[in-house]
Amino acid sequence: MKFSLALGALFATSAAAFAPIAITPRAVSISSTAVNSFSSTIFKTEDVNFADTKETIVRGGRDLFPLLPKAFEGIKEIGVIGWGSQAPAQAQNLRDSLNEAGCDIKVRIGLREGSSSFAEAREVGFTEDADTLGEMFDVIKKSDLVMLLISDAAQAALYKDIFAAMKPGATLGLSHGFLLGYLESIGEKFPENMDVIAVCPKGMGPSVRRLYEQGKEVNGAGINASFAVHQNKSGKALELALGWGVALGSPFMFETTLSSEYRSDIYGERGILLGAVHGIVESLYRRYQRQGMSPEQAFLESCESITGNIVKIISTKGIKAVYDGLEGEDKEIFKQAYSASYMPAKEILQEIYDEVSSGNEIRTVIMHGKRINKYPVGKIDGTDTWIVGEKVRASRDEDKIPLNPFTAGVYVATMMAQIDVLLEAGHPYSEVVNESVIEAVDSLCPYMHYRGVAFMVDNCSFTAKTGSRKWAPRFDYILDQLAYTAVDNGKPVNEDLIKAFEEHKVHDAVTECCKLRPTVDISVGTSSTTKEIVIE
Amino acid sequence: MKFSLALGALFATSAAAFAPIAITPRAVSISSTAVNSFSSTIFKTEDVNFADTKETIVRGGRDLFPLLPKAFEGIKEIGVIGWGSQAPAQAQNLRDSLNEAGCDIKVRIGLREGSSSFAEAREVGFTEDADTLGEMFDVIKKSDLVMLLISDAAQAALYKDIFAAMKPGATLGLSHGFLLGYLESIGEKFPENMDVIAVCPKGMGPSVRRLYEQGKEVNGAGINASFAVHQNKSGKALELALGWGVALGSPFMFETTLSSEYRSDIYGERGILLGAVHGIVESLYRRYQRQGMSPEQAFLESCESITGNIVKIISTKGIKAVYDGLEGEDKEIFKQAYSASYMPAKEILQEIYDEVSSGNEIRTVIMHGKRINKYPVGKIDGTDTWIVGEKVRASRDEDKIPLNPFTAGVYVATMMAQIDVLLEAGHPYSEVVNESVIEAVDSLCPYMHYRGVAFMVDNCSFTAKTGSRKWAPRFDYILDQLAYTAVDNGKPVNEDLIKAFEEHKVHDAVTECCKLRPTVDISVGTSSTTKEIVIE
Repeated sequence: MKFSLALGALFATSAAAFAPIAITPRAVSISSTAVNSFSSTIFKTEDVNFADTKETIVRGGRDLFPLLPKAFEGIKEIGVIGWGSQAPAQAQNLRDSLNEAGCDIKVRIGLREGSSSFAEAREVGFTEDADTLGEMFDVIKKSDLVMLLISDAAQAALYKDIFAAMKPGATLGLSHGFLLGYLESIGEKFPENMDVIAVCPKGMGPSVRRLYEQGKEVNGAGINASFAVHQNKSGKALELALGWGVALGSPFMFETTLSSEYRSDIYGERGILLGAVHGIVESLYRRYQRQGMSPEQAFLESCESITGNIVKIISTKGIKAVYDGLEGEDKEIFKQAYSASYMPAKEILQEIYDEVSSGNEIRTVIMHGKRINKYPVGKIDGTDTWIVGEKVRASRDEDKIPLNPFTAGVYVATMMAQIDVLLEAGHPYSEVVNESVIEAVDSLCPYMHYRGVAFMVDNCSFTAKTGSRKWAPRFDYILDQLAYTAVDNGKPVNEDLIKAFEEHKVHDAVTECCKLRPTVDISVGTSSTTKEIVIE
Repeated sequence: MKFSLALGALFATSAAAFAPIAITPRAVSISSTAVNSFSSTIFKTEDVNFADTKETIVRGGRDLFPLLPKAFEGIKEIGVIGWGSQAPAQAQNLRDSLNEAGCDIKVRIGLREGSSSFAEAREVGFTEDADTLGEMFDVIKKSDLVMLLISDAAQAALYKDIFAAMKPGATLGLSHGFLLGYLESIGEKFPENMDVIAVCPKGMGPSVRRLYEQGKEVNGAGINASFAVHQNKSGKALELALGWGVALGSPFMFETTLSSEYRSDIYGERGILLGAVHGIVESLYRRYQRQGMSPEQAFLESCESITGNIVKIISTKGIKAVYDGLEGEDKEIFKQAYSASYMPAKEILQEIYDEVSSGNEIRTVIMHGKRINKYPVGKIDGTDTWIVGEKVRASRDEDKIPLNPFTAGVYVATMMAQIDVLLEAGHPYSEVVNESVIEAVDSLCPYMHYRGVAFMVDNCSFTAKTGSRKWAPRFDYILDQLAYTAVDNGKPVNEDLIKAFEEHKVHDAVTECCKLRPTVDISVGTSSTTKEIVIE
């Protein structure tokens, strides 16, 4: 959010032309063998069965901190660039973990000259006096590992200067594949002479910090992360990436590629993580009122039912547990809603995937960035839905939040459709489950439950916000136009769809992930970080 | 619509890659001098003052039919390819006009082998026996003028074979610039050795035919057309384009370029012509119910007020007449609604313009075409809004349709925002007024009044449908989130916006266009063509 004002100025100087992008990019550049297997000389790897594929993971934990010096070998200074969502969380976790491991590596924050974030960084202990806070390019020049955590749009505007400022042999670290997608869209590449790695927590920054703090008493509490080794000139990139993930407090790390990461990540936030859940709630809130409910009851049966009941079941017992827990007429209602919603939701999700992987969606974000000086991004949290939502939250009784079976059918159908689009495109189960299930139920929905869905959209990253504002209304309309009309017109349940849901292999993968889940639930609303939620 | 089923198959063989497209394409390739002036040795040109610019036009009319033989000199056979929206109308008008002019030019329809449209073409007198109906490539091979009126997506899939089949010296005729946009997006061009012209009626096919039929008794009734001479190898292209427009029955013709045409056309249908009006109606229908109206009354005050009252005023007296006709509190309500809606609507409209001119929107249409075998395009006409709409229409009293000042403020603000985005991008007034005002109020809204907005979206061309389904929900959400909340929160009227509206130069241009308007209103609902409305 903070960065928004500067974006227009940044873009004013760039006259980007977009390069050729193939239009049939369904298959991501991951072969199953490449994903499923890697080895480390420092960390213990495990092979885990996600559904019918075996994937190698590294389980995190504070007991691994003594291995950090070896993983960070050769790194004396780390520059964390930016102060958006991920940067405050990652910088603090990294500093604390490296401290605890007895490393003398300096973690330093780099910010734009004059940025108002200097004060916030100082508040959590990064200061000019201690030489742990400075102007971004000064910091970049000194760093052996440059963790580039500025917004996507700023990365697109500044990447050339950043690459040029990095010292020879330094490693570029990302938490998102967006920059690769952008470089592809303009026909450019990362400089060949540097290592490029990514560690991508599957949750927004505040949850990365919050769970790490909570986890001080619970070994392994945190947010899972994918990692990618995009360029490995030094031969040390893989170990450094794993060390970074361990230092963040990730319960487990799985491998991906930058290309697969940006596709699934940009897609996921437009889908069930933000855009889809917003559209689902708006459409159901209207529907239930048309059926005679009061606005308050309609909000309770739609939004509250999802964020306060359904996702809690999914978080600990898996997706299918929602369905298994229903009986009699409720189960029939779930089936009707699921059956009618799956294909319409999938139609929009496939469109999102195609737009992301063709480069269109990245162009949309860049073009939006160019317009924001003239059209500042407005708040969406002031409509009737969210005013009523605030009232409902104020008088909430957690134990009385209903599990509306129709709401559950729509929500679960959309989640399953999101999973299927990713699987059909060749993404590995670890990524699919994290981007479509875990990040939703363990990271975003708890915050949505605390402050509402629209508030989350208003306070997420520019890329996520652009996308969720673009796609939420599409989910709303298509569900209203195709799914709910089908139910109202008595269209019979498609038993094949229900059977496919019951027997879906993802349930095993989710179960496996539940086993790897930390034993603590995230606690929101009590931490100071919630006042400045920014999703990346 | 008919063509939809074949699209997936057509696309399956094309592995298109998109070429570089500049991302700062605000200015279209029209210099004001080039647009404003052309001359003809056959038709009388007139210079018209549209606001502060002078533009050359040719006024049409049946009295000009005797000039057609000269304009069509060298053309013996015309192949009209396709049978969607424009083809049935244009083929019949052309045949009838050329007949009346005593030309012995053959107008022949070319269709896909096995197309169900053969029967429809036969019904209106194009037959195999008379050698005026055949397989499309057979017809293309024989034609001196190939009027390529198949769907945009089919053009993208088949253009290579079509170019190859054309005989040397034949002219390619288009009614839309989409093919140029597509060729640009894949880095290709039209073959250099052919003339390429476009005549683009600013109304859907059925209205082109319907007004021509009505106009048999009223000289000059019809739909305005822009024309473009893209390649003029023969030196005769301009006169042929003007002759084509006259033969269609256009009241007046104005010059554009293919590039300017596809930008304004694809943009316009996503805006006030279809997408925006749909989104406006849905958002107001909900709002008025929240304020306590019955569904029927809410529909009357939103949709009916636009299609049955507001646009009728604009059609004959101009945009400002809606505002001038309001008094007292009604005028204040209009101002509030206008003031709050203008910028949010413009934000979406600028986004649409950028998406179209960057090539993104064309890619979206092509990608949608590839998905429709798996995700057939569903009807949107079955929701509560349109079920209520049908009831309201059934008991309609035309004379009692209200002019809701809030509705008027939102609708007019969106229309003005659409106009301003086009003007800022450098489009000429003739094109701006036709794409943003005349086509809306004289062609589309009368059909919407007859059958509802959603019905029109369900029955428009694939490109228009893809776009209006994509953008309508965006207008809905942004108006609800930013405009209506501003009004409800008592945000003061922005007097600068109102002043800019009052003094806007477009009003003069609209007045000038009203003078050139045929004296008949389109009559819908009585013609057989309304059963198969397809907008191009």
